[in-house]
Amino acid sequence: MSWRDNLIKIEPYVAGEQPNKTDFIKLNANENPYPPAPGVLKAIESFNAEGLKKYPDANSRELADAIAQRVGLKRANVFVGNGSDDVLALCFRAFFNSDKPVIYPDITYSFYPVWCDMLRIPYETIPVDEDFNINAADYARENGGVVIANPNAPTSIGRGLDFIREILDNNRDSVVIVDEAYVDFGGESAVPLLNEYENLVVTQTFSKSRSMAGMRIGCAFGNEEIISALYAAKDSYNSYPMDSVAIAAGVASVADEEYFRATVAKVIATRDRLSAALREMGFTLPDSCTNFVFAQHSRYRAKDICEHLKTRDIYVRYFSKARIDDRLRITVGTDEEIDALIRELKAYIV
Amino acid sequence: MSWRDNLIKIEPYVAGEQPNKTDFIKLNANENPYPPAPGVLKAIESFNAEGLKKYPDANSRELADAIAQRVGLKRANVFVGNGSDDVLALCFRAFFNSDKPVIYPDITYSFYPVWCDMLRIPYETIPVDEDFNINAADYARENGGVVIANPNAPTSIGRGLDFIREILDNNRDSVVIVDEAYVDFGGESAVPLLNEYENLVVTQTFSKSRSMAGMRIGCAFGNEEIISALYAAKDSYNSYPMDSVAIAAGVASVADEEYFRATVAKVIATRDRLSAALREMGFTLPDSCTNFVFAQHSRYRAKDICEHLKTRDIYVRYFSKARIDDRLRITVGTDEEIDALIRELKAYIV
Repeated sequence: MSWRDNLIKIEPYVAGEQPNKTDFIKLNANENPYPPAPGVLKAIESFNAEGLKKYPDANSRELADAIAQRVGLKRANVFVGNGSDDVLALCFRAFFNSDKPVIYPDITYSFYPVWCDMLRIPYETIPVDEDFNINAADYARENGGVVIANPNAPTSIGRGLDFIREILDNNRDSVVIVDEAYVDFGGESAVPLLNEYENLVVTQTFSKSRSMAGMRIGCAFGNEEIISALYAAKDSYNSYPMDSVAIAAGVASVADEEYFRATVAKVIATRDRLSAALREMGFTLPDSCTNFVFAQHSRYRAKDICEHLKTRDIYVRYFSKARIDDRLRITVGTDEEIDALIRELKAYIV
Repeated sequence: MSWRDNLIKIEPYVAGEQPNKTDFIKLNANENPYPPAPGVLKAIESFNAEGLKKYPDANSRELADAIAQRVGLKRANVFVGNGSDDVLALCFRAFFNSDKPVIYPDITYSFYPVWCDMLRIPYETIPVDEDFNINAADYARENGGVVIANPNAPTSIGRGLDFIREILDNNRDSVVIVDEAYVDFGGESAVPLLNEYENLVVTQTFSKSRSMAGMRIGCAFGNEEIISALYAAKDSYNSYPMDSVAIAAGVASVADEEYFRATVAKVIATRDRLSAALREMGFTLPDSCTNFVFAQHSRYRAKDICEHLKTRDIYVRYFSKARIDDRLRITVGTDEEIDALIRELKAYIV
């Protein structure tokens, strides 16, 4: 018997490569190529750092208020945390305390099984069809909870509210989490359904559409009872998850709706141009509702393309995983970055 | 059967009261009354907020390097996270995977049982003696892990390395966590023992001695295998726990050793003056090795004193908990704040 026997045994999540150099085009982590709103820069620059001697507001109420107001909810319907990974893991902890398996698609965000393993939550995955579509009818079965990323990652496919409604109607007795990390790039948010379904939880993030991946801000929406459970789970782990600077920066981001819309519109325009160019080169890809595309070439192996692009200092994402190892996930960068990518692909694909 | 049946059932941790007003003396959360180092203010003011569009460095290497260098360790021996609550909870997750109970004192940081409950870790508490001293010999028993806060909270008592050594010698087969949240105020750090004991983990925080409670920075020290397990646990939960601003601010804090020492010295001087004044008024209290004192009056009930002080806009901490409900925990504030406290106490205690 040794202390080593009690160490955690776990496969760590592998995120997109972050090369130790600065002069390359990074299209592998679904980051936004544009900076956060100007107000965010000002909020940080003028932040009263003396105040850091005090603990932050435990429940980040100022930020919860700002977010609530934007989406037309009350503060009691909003939870904020240290990135949507933090928020989602707390959701799993707070809502999935059943012996029945939590269900979600086989092709989706790769952190779901990791959290289930960590929290010893049983789970089963349900295959998406050959076009990566989720079939809502497959979710009409006994379960301990449901998680649906909509739009889904890494497939980029977004579905309408009828689809979410069907899943909710089939699951009145489970908490249904709709993970909307990418919703702002063309998805349809389930927030308006919160009035109808008391078992619905919607999560969102500031990392993508608000260009604040470096700041770690995520949120969840739900009815008061749901949100209270989330705060209880948070309080049992870490009373003060968000720092004071992040709270101030988040508030400033929410304040600038115009910049938010303009940035998202730029990303969408570039994405659609990228999608058309890829199709012209012989790629097939679903219509993307996100800030990335999920593309397969008829004649070139995804892994080879990925490796080749790396030699040209362009990083895209390749998953060596069943069903999707013939696909590239390419984040939408600036127009210049995407032009460079298209140029290199055209030179490679003959 | 309803979704409600699977909600988390948990008693949330109750932190020190944070009244919704600004004009009061806050001596109830063990915060530092002085601002962070001037370099921290500059680091935030000049932070390149454009870079927030990218994810932070997942392992906060720049900060881990700075901390490692300061204490004479390698980066591989240092883990940094989002406050020491985050770090400690991850330690419990990473190191306490046994069927045997984790052991710690009955009077100590109140988050330990909360994390055990959350992670379904069995635990047993071991009573401190009537003077709140931990008896190292009590920890010579089978267990799944050991946690010792040194200096301990809320007792304020710090013990020397002989004491820690005895606990370690009795527990070669368990991970022993020494929680040093308050060590800089007069405790003796177990970091030098890391070379001798491969099962030792030491945790520290930037919230107290570095005046950065609002920034959420904590760290752990241990051998490479220990620290790797901690990163694996972190990666399985949240790849990017610390935001980019916090990393930069933390680095700036570590860079100013002189300011750090001067601030700690001021707190210690005020604490010793407060301790003497309290004893003169008929309080008994252990010699504090922390930035707070733990005081009992022979004739006045702690709860009454606490309530009275509140009416004078001075907030101290009272725990309605067995064995310590006759005590006040008073954080060391500025000299002016402590003068005001002493004045009010002198007027109340006749």
